[in-house]
Order: sequence, then structure tokens, then C-alpha cells
Amino acid sequence: MSVTLAIDAMGGDHGPVVTVPACCDFLEKHADVKIALVGNPEVLKQALSQFPNAPMERIQIISASEVVLMDDPIEVALRRKKDSSMRVAIEQVREGLADAIISSGNTGALMAISRYILKTLDGVDRPAIATAIPNEKGRGTTMLDLGANADCEPMHLVQFAQMANVMVQVVDGTQNPSIGLLNIGEEVIKGNEVVKQTSELLRQTNLNFYGNVEGNDIFKGTTDIVVCDGFVGNVVLKASEGLAKMMSGLIKEEFNRSWLTKLMAICAMVPLLRVRKRVDHRRYNGAVLLGLRGCVIKSHGSADRFAFGFALERAYEAGKNRMVERIAQAFAAETK
Amino acid sequence: MSVTLAIDAMGGDHGPVVTVPACCDFLEKHADVKIALVGNPEVLKQALSQFPNAPMERIQIISASEVVLMDDPIEVALRRKKDSSMRVAIEQVREGLADAIISSGNTGALMAISRYILKTLDGVDRPAIATAIPNEKGRGTTMLDLGANADCEPMHLVQFAQMANVMVQVVDGTQNPSIGLLNIGEEVIKGNEVVKQTSELLRQTNLNFYGNVEGNDIFKGTTDIVVCDGFVGNVVLKASEGLAKMMSGLIKEEFNRSWLTKLMAICAMVPLLRVRKRVDHRRYNGAVLLGLRGCVIKSHGSADRFAFGFALERAYEAGKNRMVERIAQAFAAETK
Repeated sequence: MSVTLAIDAMGGDHGPVVTVPACCDFLEKHADVKIALVGNPEVLKQALSQFPNAPMERIQIISASEVVLMDDPIEVALRRKKDSSMRVAIEQVREGLADAIISSGNTGALMAISRYILKTLDGVDRPAIATAIPNEKGRGTTMLDLGANADCEPMHLVQFAQMANVMVQVVDGTQNPSIGLLNIGEEVIKGNEVVKQTSELLRQTNLNFYGNVEGNDIFKGTTDIVVCDGFVGNVVLKASEGLAKMMSGLIKEEFNRSWLTKLMAICAMVPLLRVRKRVDHRRYNGAVLLGLRGCVIKSHGSADRFAFGFALERAYEAGKNRMVERIAQAFAAETK
Repeated sequence: MSVTLAIDAMGGDHGPVVTVPACCDFLEKHADVKIALVGNPEVLKQALSQFPNAPMERIQIISASEVVLMDDPIEVALRRKKDSSMRVAIEQVREGLADAIISSGNTGALMAISRYILKTLDGVDRPAIATAIPNEKGRGTTMLDLGANADCEPMHLVQFAQMANVMVQVVDGTQNPSIGLLNIGEEVIKGNEVVKQTSELLRQTNLNFYGNVEGNDIFKGTTDIVVCDGFVGNVVLKASEGLAKMMSGLIKEEFNRSWLTKLMAICAMVPLLRVRKRVDHRRYNGAVLLGLRGCVIKSHGSADRFAFGFALERAYEAGKNRMVERIAQAFAAETK
């Protein structure tokens, strides 16, 4: 059985310069993949012409005349740009012509258009954004929500846990993943009201609920999944990006200080590069929009060819293993 | 005019082994400081005997028979241990015998006992915990609340901003500090309900309100102060500690991999140590409990002699510059 991926080829900071080469790499790696590149056909043909060995029989170009820009307001993206590459790519999934859609475009627009076109699954009140974050154990900690829902009720957080439970089993192959609820203390009495009530509800499910976890547990890898509202999740994700950037900036600055420290940098290159590789956010590219009637993968806007490949990998795993159907089944079983 | 600091000498993971040497160092550095060491007199005398050159005329030992343990429930610390070193030290401030109290003990207990003994300032509904976090600009970003208030109303966040505004002027000497409201997008429409309303209220004050900031702005140093509720603040702080620990662990691991990489580590020692020094959390030790009728400084439980010295420094600056009185004046002016 083949997997078809619909690509918003024009999206993100770089557009086809990144998406087309990454897709060609991916097709070479996976013989069971077909790709639908959505966007300006002239531009896409031009980009493809750089890859004379690409398997053209597995590549389809689908025309879309507009592009959702990174700073387009959601309303503009949703109501005015009805022939955007993002929207046409999502429609491929709705029509059953693709198993997943991948976009590096504007997150808010991607969520809004996906909800509008695909609708949410039965039993899911609100879709959420989930991604894997590097941890000490070398696997990723899957965290959600990362910004789709700033205000959450306890029931929403429970649904996030249920969706992530299926996602991690399907995409990472982890059986019965452990689930932590992000809180400010391990003791049951701590935390805000929503978290306290969520904890009670999660204990009543048949999920592998570990209990409360704290901020540092995300990077320790205490649990496979960490659940929080989209406000907290987004702030933590961006703060972590900021801290990592500051630290690597400081390392660069100190090694660039003089010819002597530059020499030291060359001496220490191998271990430093290994560290960078191990925490390389590009390897964790590809957030999943969970709770929709279709598989939608959000790649980082600034993703390069290497990073976009990882988003394609996530989409492929989710599509091949029928993640969305399995989430739908889990919710159907829950409501029986 | 001299500054008197009351020390919960028994508190924290290490007790007098850390607090007494740090205080002796500090007395040597500041001729205008007097220190009241609170705890078991025998133990404290024994610890002081290691410092024959300490200025004993500026050291007072105050007896307290109990110690608040790091895992004592707040109720136990508050109701049962009425002769704890923490409580007796706080009472020194209430009685006007000390200008500030510093403790490495249990945060929850310190806040609860401080509120009980000292009471909050007029116009302050809830005290908050503020600390400086290293940023790219090399100064600290002062962030609050870090965990005293899991659920906040907009008015509480505005009060946090007002208190931090005075604190940063007094302790860091920054005139008219800029204030950012932690949010998930710079656009006014984004964020949760509490943050949206807080933003409106902050615009109406005469504070130097910058607007919304995101998680990465904490480490960029976009504003001098970042305001958030205690749930978000605590999670971000702990997540940052976790990430920093993971990264330094990875660096150690990679440099320890073989004799060759160990040799590389020696070559790269100087820049790596400089980086560590620049982000050393010990230099930022000393969180301030704001909004009380007295100056209370919380040192990290695991603080060593070096780190505890920085907490003493913060207490000294706050005490010398009459931080609490100035916060009280700011709130009195506000309510006129």
C-alpha cells in the first residue's frame, strides 16, 4: 500500500527551494510514497528540473494560484485566499486523495483552514498541536497543546492526553506511553484549578497516567507525553528555543574571542558537533495537528531541506499507520 | 547607616555549612553590614570557629530550636514549628531588628510564614516571587510570579508589575524599567482572557509597559521585567533549568567519550568555563518575595557558599535602598 503526501509546496519562509528538494530526497528513500506538490506549476516544474533523477511517476503537481503568507491574518488566509497552496493541499486530504498534508506555513492559518475543511473528529472538542521535544533519554517527549488553545477546560486536557496516547503509539511505536500532567509541584494539592480537576479525570481513564510532572521533567523524559494548555505549552516551547539559542550564541562568542580560542574550537569541534546533533531541533521538526478528520503536519516556518524531511517522515508514519482512524476509534470506544 | 541581615542559618540543603561561611565572606566585603545568624547556637558557634578573623562585633547569634525541613508541609512549618530558625529570622524583620531576612528553606513555608508574620502591604492582594534570569544582554530579566500564585486575576498581574518596577529600580539600579506581559503572540488578539485584560489595564498605568512578549524574549532580554502568573512562571523556570542541565550533561558526556575527546575538553576548557560563568545560575541566586511588610529573600535550596553570597547581595541592596518602603509608597500613590 502506498502513502500519498500532499505538500503545501509554497509555504514557509523558503517555499519550493526547500520543499521540492526535501520531497525528492524523501521519494528516493521511500519507494511506497507518492507526493502531490501543490502550488504554482511553473515554479514547481522549475524547482523539479534540478532533480533529473526524481521519480516523476510518483510526483504530481497540483495547481494553486495563491500563497498564505507568514504574517497573513487568519481571516485573510481563510476567507480570501481560497486557492492557496495550503488550502488546496488540505483539500487533497479531505477528498481522500492524500493520506497527510504537510505545510511550513503560518500555524494559525493552517489550524483554521484545516478545521474548516476537514472538521474535527467526533468526541474531540478542540484540536491541539503536539510535537516531540528532545530529552535526556535521547527519545522525544511529546508535548501538547503548543498554542492552539490558550484557555482550556479539564475535559480538553483529557482529550489531548487521549489523542497523544494514540499518536505516540502510532508514530513513535511506544506501547502504552506514560502521560504526565504539567504542574508546578508533584504534590496533588499544588497547581491551578484546571490542572487539579484534570488530574482527577485522568485518574479515571484507562490511560497510563503517571501523575503531575514539573517543567524540568520535559527534558528529563520522565514521561512519554506531557499535557498542558496551549498557553503554557507555547511559552515553554519558545522559552526553551530562546535559552538554547542564547547558550549556543554564547558558545560561539566565547570560541570566536581570539585566534587562540578559535584554535580551541577546532580542537573541540567533534564533541561540540555531536552535542549539536543530539539536540538538533531539525530532527524533531513536524508538529501534528491532532483531532482533525485528516492528518495535518506543521513544519517549522524556517525549516531547511534536512528539517522538512523529518516532517515528511512524521507524516509518512502517521499516514501509513492510519493515525487519524485510530484516534477516531479510540474516541468511539470511549463514548460507547 | 548599617544594614542588618537576619539569616535562617539552618535552612536549605546544607544549613550552616554554607550559610555561615557565606556570611563571613560577606561581612568582610561590606563594612556596613551586621548579621544575625538564627539557629542552634552550639552548631553556629562551632561553624563560626572556623573563621577566627570574622568580625564578631557585627555578628549576633539568635537561638531557635527547630528547623523547617525541605519537605515539611506548610501547615507543619507554620503551625507546629513556632521556634524554627526560619520563623525567628522573619520575626527579626517584623520587630525592626533586621532590614531583610534570607532563607534557603522550603519556598512554600517561607512564603506562608512571611505572610503570617509580616502581613502584606496595603494595596497588595497577593505577594509574588521574583527573580532575575540570565539573558543575552548579560543583564538579568526579572521575572515574576514564579509560583506563589497559580491562578491570577488581571489585577494581580498589574500589581506584580508595579512591585517589580520598584524592585528593579532599587536592586538593579535600572531607571524606568520596561515591562513585558508574557503571552503567546505579540498581536493584541492572542492569548488567554486573563492576559488580554491585563494588557488593557497595564496600558492605563504610568508604568513603562512594552506590550506582549513571548517565551524567547525572556532570554533575549527584550524587556527588563516579564510578568506572568505563578503557574506559567514556575513551569518556565523549571523547564529552563531542565534544558540547561540537559545541555551541560550532553556536553560533559560527549567530552568524556574517549581519551581523545577528554584531551579536546582540556583544549577547550577556557571558553567552555567562560560560557558556564556567564550563565551560572548561582550568580542569579536570590528570589525576592514581593508585597510583604518586610524584605524576604529566598535563596535556592541547594545554594553553595558562592551562590548564597549573591542572595545576601540582593538582600543588602534591597535593605539599603529601602525597597519595601518604596513599594509601599508606590502603592500609596497609586491609591490616592
